[in-house]
Amino acid sequence: MKTATKLDRPDASQEIQAVIQQWTTAVRDKNLDAIMAYYAPDIVAYDAIVALQFKGAEAYRKHWAFCLGLCEGAMLFELRDLVIHADDEVAFAHWLCSCGATDDKGEQKSSWMRASAGYRRMNGQWKAMHEHFSAPFDMESGKALFDLKP
Amino acid sequence: MKTATKLDRPDASQEIQAVIQQWTTAVRDKNLDAIMAYYAPDIVAYDAIVALQFKGAEAYRKHWAFCLGLCEGAMLFELRDLVIHADDEVAFAHWLCSCGATDDKGEQKSSWMRASAGYRRMNGQWKAMHEHFSAPFDMESGKALFDLKP
Repeated sequence: MKTATKLDRPDASQEIQAVIQQWTTAVRDKNLDAIMAYYAPDIVAYDAIVALQFKGAEAYRKHWAFCLGLCEGAMLFELRDLVIHADDEVAFAHWLCSCGATDDKGEQKSSWMRASAGYRRMNGQWKAMHEHFSAPFDMESGKALFDLKP
Repeated sequence: MKTATKLDRPDASQEIQAVIQQWTTAVRDKNLDAIMAYYAPDIVAYDAIVALQFKGAEAYRKHWAFCLGLCEGAMLFELRDLVIHADDEVAFAHWLCSCGATDDKGEQKSSWMRASAGYRRMNGQWKAMHEHFSAPFDMESGKALFDLKP
C-alpha cells in the first residue's frame, strides 16, 4: 500500500517552502520584480479584492502594483499553518496569512486571510501557476469577516 | 528541455475531471454522503462563509449539511474555465463556479465564485486534500462582490 503523506517528495516540499519564503520576503520588501519572479507567465490568480480573476503575469503585475500602492507604511505579511503537497512536477500549498499595514499614525491594522497556491516545475524552477487569496464573508451582511482568528 | 503543460499526465487529468464531475452532481443532488466521498479524511477547507477554515472531514461534513440546509429549492452549481494540473500522485485544479438556488417564488439567485482544489492519489483514488471557495470583496465597503461576471 502506498501511503500518501506530504513527505513523499521531501526535496520538492523543501524547494516549494524556499520559494514561498523568498516570495514572502519580496512582498514585505514591496519589491514588485521579486514578487513577480514567483509566478509563471500564464498565472491565473483569484485575489481577495476587485475582480473574479487575473489572467497572465502582465495583468497580475498591474494588480500587485495597485495593492502595494495601498500600503504606505510597513507591510505585515505573516504565514501560518503552511501545508505543502509536492510530487516531482506538480505541487500545491495552502496557509493562513496575517495581512496588514502600519498607518501614518503608527497603528497596525491586520486581518487573517486564506491562501492557496498551485505550482509546476518549469525548466527546473518551481513557478506558481495559480493563486487564491480570500477572506470569508458573513451570510447576513455580505461583509468580509476581518476579525476571525485561527 | 521538459515542457510543463497540463497534458503531462493526460490520464490523471481525466481522472481528476471525472472526480470533479461526480462531486458536482452530488452537490446538485444535495447528496451529503456522495459529496463527502470526494474528500480525504484530513481535508483542510477554506469555504466562502462562516469561518477561516474547516479541518477534517467531520467538521466539514457539518458545514456542508448547514450549507445544503440553506438551499430549499433546486441548487444551481455550474463550473466554468476548469484548469487541471496533474502529476502521478499530486494534482490541483481551479475553476469559476456559478452558485445559487431557486427560491420559493421560483426566482433564481446566483453569483460567480472562485474555487481551487488540491488532490492526492490515495490507494489508487484521487481525494481532495484541500478546497478553497470565495468571492472577492470591495475595498471601500468591505462587502462581497456578488455581481461580477467572468
